[in-house]
Amino acid sequence: MFPEILTLDAIRKAYAAGSTPLDLMDEVIRRRDAWPDKAVFITPVPDDLLRAEARALMERGPEGLPLYGIPFAVKDNIDVAGLPTTAACPAFAYDPPSDATVVARLRAAGAIVIGKTNLDQFATGLNGSRSPHGAPRSVFDADYVSGGSSSGSAVAVAAGICAFSLGTDTAGSGRVPAAFNNIVGVKPTPGLVPNTGVVPACRSVDVVTVLAPTVADATEARRIMEGYDAADPYSRTALPVGLRPAPRIGVLTASEREFFGNAEVEALYDAAIARAERLGATIVPFDYAPFREAAALLYDGPWVAERLAAVEDFLNSNPGDFDPTVRRIIEGARGRTAVEAFRGQYRLNELRQKVAPVWADLDALLLPTSPTTATVAAMQADPVGENSKFGRYTNFANLMGCAAIAVPAGFGASGLPAGVMLVAPPFTDDALVPLAAALHHEAACGLGRDRDAAIPAPPPPHLPEGWITLAVVGAHLRGMPLNGQLTEPGGVFLCEAKTAPEYRLYALTGTTPAKPGLIRAATGRAIALELWALPPDAFGRFVAAIPAPLGIGKITLDDGRLVAGFLCEHQALKDAEDITAYGGWRNYGQERTL
Amino acid sequence: MFPEILTLDAIRKAYAAGSTPLDLMDEVIRRRDAWPDKAVFITPVPDDLLRAEARALMERGPEGLPLYGIPFAVKDNIDVAGLPTTAACPAFAYDPPSDATVVARLRAAGAIVIGKTNLDQFATGLNGSRSPHGAPRSVFDADYVSGGSSSGSAVAVAAGICAFSLGTDTAGSGRVPAAFNNIVGVKPTPGLVPNTGVVPACRSVDVVTVLAPTVADATEARRIMEGYDAADPYSRTALPVGLRPAPRIGVLTASEREFFGNAEVEALYDAAIARAERLGATIVPFDYAPFREAAALLYDGPWVAERLAAVEDFLNSNPGDFDPTVRRIIEGARGRTAVEAFRGQYRLNELRQKVAPVWADLDALLLPTSPTTATVAAMQADPVGENSKFGRYTNFANLMGCAAIAVPAGFGASGLPAGVMLVAPPFTDDALVPLAAALHHEAACGLGRDRDAAIPAPPPPHLPEGWITLAVVGAHLRGMPLNGQLTEPGGVFLCEAKTAPEYRLYALTGTTPAKPGLIRAATGRAIALELWALPPDAFGRFVAAIPAPLGIGKITLDDGRLVAGFLCEHQALKDAEDITAYGGWRNYGQERTL
Repeated sequence: MFPEILTLDAIRKAYAAGSTPLDLMDEVIRRRDAWPDKAVFITPVPDDLLRAEARALMERGPEGLPLYGIPFAVKDNIDVAGLPTTAACPAFAYDPPSDATVVARLRAAGAIVIGKTNLDQFATGLNGSRSPHGAPRSVFDADYVSGGSSSGSAVAVAAGICAFSLGTDTAGSGRVPAAFNNIVGVKPTPGLVPNTGVVPACRSVDVVTVLAPTVADATEARRIMEGYDAADPYSRTALPVGLRPAPRIGVLTASEREFFGNAEVEALYDAAIARAERLGATIVPFDYAPFREAAALLYDGPWVAERLAAVEDFLNSNPGDFDPTVRRIIEGARGRTAVEAFRGQYRLNELRQKVAPVWADLDALLLPTSPTTATVAAMQADPVGENSKFGRYTNFANLMGCAAIAVPAGFGASGLPAGVMLVAPPFTDDALVPLAAALHHEAACGLGRDRDAAIPAPPPPHLPEGWITLAVVGAHLRGMPLNGQLTEPGGVFLCEAKTAPEYRLYALTGTTPAKPGLIRAATGRAIALELWALPPDAFGRFVAAIPAPLGIGKITLDDGRLVAGFLCEHQALKDAEDITAYGGWRNYGQERTL
Repeated sequence: MFPEILTLDAIRKAYAAGSTPLDLMDEVIRRRDAWPDKAVFITPVPDDLLRAEARALMERGPEGLPLYGIPFAVKDNIDVAGLPTTAACPAFAYDPPSDATVVARLRAAGAIVIGKTNLDQFATGLNGSRSPHGAPRSVFDADYVSGGSSSGSAVAVAAGICAFSLGTDTAGSGRVPAAFNNIVGVKPTPGLVPNTGVVPACRSVDVVTVLAPTVADATEARRIMEGYDAADPYSRTALPVGLRPAPRIGVLTASEREFFGNAEVEALYDAAIARAERLGATIVPFDYAPFREAAALLYDGPWVAERLAAVEDFLNSNPGDFDPTVRRIIEGARGRTAVEAFRGQYRLNELRQKVAPVWADLDALLLPTSPTTATVAAMQADPVGENSKFGRYTNFANLMGCAAIAVPAGFGASGLPAGVMLVAPPFTDDALVPLAAALHHEAACGLGRDRDAAIPAPPPPHLPEGWITLAVVGAHLRGMPLNGQLTEPGGVFLCEAKTAPEYRLYALTGTTPAKPGLIRAATGRAIALELWALPPDAFGRFVAAIPAPLGIGKITLDDGRLVAGFLCEHQALKDAEDITAYGGWRNYGQERTL
């Protein structure tokens, strides 16, 4: 009825075939109870409440609820009304008066919280073992850490207990556990998704993340969670940024490759680079050194003072209630001065300027998510040293304001998975989706614990709100000489289409390159065209650059839609050949060259 | 030959009439020597060097030098190669290896540095008296402070010794001394103008400013100084933001008015509000309280640690070389923790969110520059208390990322001037110019020490790079029903114009509101139109919203220029009345209603 891994598509198909949210809650309860690792949840939602919520939802019906009956888990540093928030520190627990903004938005969309998940205490860690509730384990080998700090959230998805889960990510906490459990971690641009109702780690760089089996599913949840929230001091309004259709992707140079001896992960990274190339990306080695230096600021620099700022009173009153490693890290901030804090920010800004040319050249970086993994035993023997290896490629992203998507990259001979990340400038969150989904799809490494599950094909490109659809009929068609004027500013090809029948096409004389002119006429035929989408500023510049006698008006499509598209001044058609009969510029060109 | 106050226009007219840069340097030397206040300059450029620079410039000629032979002074915390940088602390002096970026850009444009000016030591102060070189005095009363910290720079301009000068502004240092000397202070958006080669005060919020007799002159210098500089960690690329043509201007509510008993300044503030209203602004009282709280963070919060970060080693080695007040302020940062620094930033971000609705409602704030002034004697008696009054309305601007222009607001019965500021969101620097210049022009209070000088009329609007010119012919003309579609997204009216003669105009049938259709034709006549300019994104959205049968093509103007403009599909003109003979839509409408 429900597959082992709960993708949104599978759940919706099951609902369409007659299953109900109540059926799914029964299944979630069964799976949650059956899962052998008891460190995944801190506070599961009681069974009867889960069923009651499903019934209430069924009574209301799915209308207008994009996440109708979708079960999700919430990291226990994010408020869910009715459940305590503990941050994996029982003495710190409080009863939140309301849902965190992200939880409220997901619930309002019909999603159902199934429980609060374990984490490295106060989200301080990348491994999952720093919790009084025990260390959740990788779904592939119970000797190995699950990764953290969003440990329980990752395992809950990878084990098929829920469809997606919320994590948080300051240094990599929403990405490392995705890599260790063969699932996707979507880490939004800082400020895109509100932090209201989230226990801060480093409040200036914390981000709520989504863990899910696929890029499409995590992205769907993120889009519901995102949007300005005046109650969050770091909330920002997104300005979506595009990616070129054949992106330039940065990869580690030989001197910056560090896998701590883990040849499996290195080989999987190389395979991911090869996949990106096959998918049309241009692979460009870049200098990771300034990113690495920024990464080091997060724990070795003044930012650890943010962790102290978040829990200072509690640490003063309850020092014995902390995990010893977490306490040692946070107490390391004592004595750090305001001068150090500002100097750290100066250095970070210097590094941001230093990497600006990298971002000017590259669309995204393709990096290992974590360069290696570790057993729980090894982690307990060296809790800081082993942990810090995991963050080598994740730590810089939030300090640099980046968006990132971590996707599975396959399995080594050990049976353990590894992951890779696409990391790119602020507000590329949507732009990264097609390539991330394609990289995942091509990896063919299953979904979560189900290594044989088929990975769905990448979703069609998502157009950010406000992008403008443009019909092109001539030299801007794909493969034609002026197509670059659409692709260079980030234009996205949507589909082929046709005009309504009342149009005529002419071959203009004296234009270079050769161009047609389209006009609406009393009689004519449907003319083939292509629909593209552009951001408003790129569209504006594009229109301003069109030479006479062409311009942009409204074209009626054969399905009745009106879209912006190329039209021609009538006066210019006097000597032009009427090529309406060809049905389009491409046909005309092909027949002419025959 | 040269007027008392050296506006760019006056200098250029003198050059056009035969005067030379050498003549002007002789005059500058004469004025500099004759000025009675010897606290203005710390390091004047030697006379022979000034004359040599003028001769070199004359040999080269004015071609391609927008600031050919324009003398300017530089605050002595900004590097000028060949002159020591002292920050008004002789023991701190160093010989800079090169010009600060802003100085280099001005010199490359033909401007001539005439000397380094006095300042409150390390730019720590708003009054001008914290300097071992003495306190420069207001050009209107030698008992009174000049304002600071850009004290010497303000006096040099107001005294007519140079055309403009550079200041810096962290808390108000580029604006307060402008107010006290009847000149203009342009304070760019932080990051717009590079800080490379500037001694930091609070490095994250410092801004280089321009002091000049008029808004137009200060703006002209600013435009040459601005632009991305990778060497400055806080340099940013500008995204120009527009102001509505009838802007909504925020003014202090009664409860937030504080002039410390100075009724003269309060009356001048009220008069400025009345002028703004006469100029077409809508006056809206707003709540200054959160801005005031942000302002308090700069000295009472952790930002003072930036001042310590800037000079910590020197303070440790040379504590006796500091001005006692400056030292006390900077030493106040000792013991401040990194936790406090981050908490200050959290609070600032909370306040930024809190004022977001204010910026959504208002185009700019109109505030007193300084609510009062003080004698040097009073300042020396209470150096911190008196100083802090001056910053009541200036302190917040850089923390909030604002652009500001301080303009003279006239004189009180005491014979002392006061000023007002327009303060607005990031990158409104150009947008503020027309209103600021108009406010100044209407104040009719002379230029600097010359209370009778005529203030030039406001300059025409400056179009940011990349804005798109659009010709409108019908319902979008000024006063017509759709004109708001141009003004609401920040469109700027440029001028009236005409098409080339080969156009015909038709009154379309069945459109609401009534619209004309313009087409190019074999015979026709010049049709009246208006040229507007829009940012590319607004232009893109505008084009996308135009309904058929209208669209945007290229129109040939009667001067041969091709501009984007409204065209009409030929097919829609079948039943339309040919109104070409009216010569334009406005004429047609007027004659019809007769």
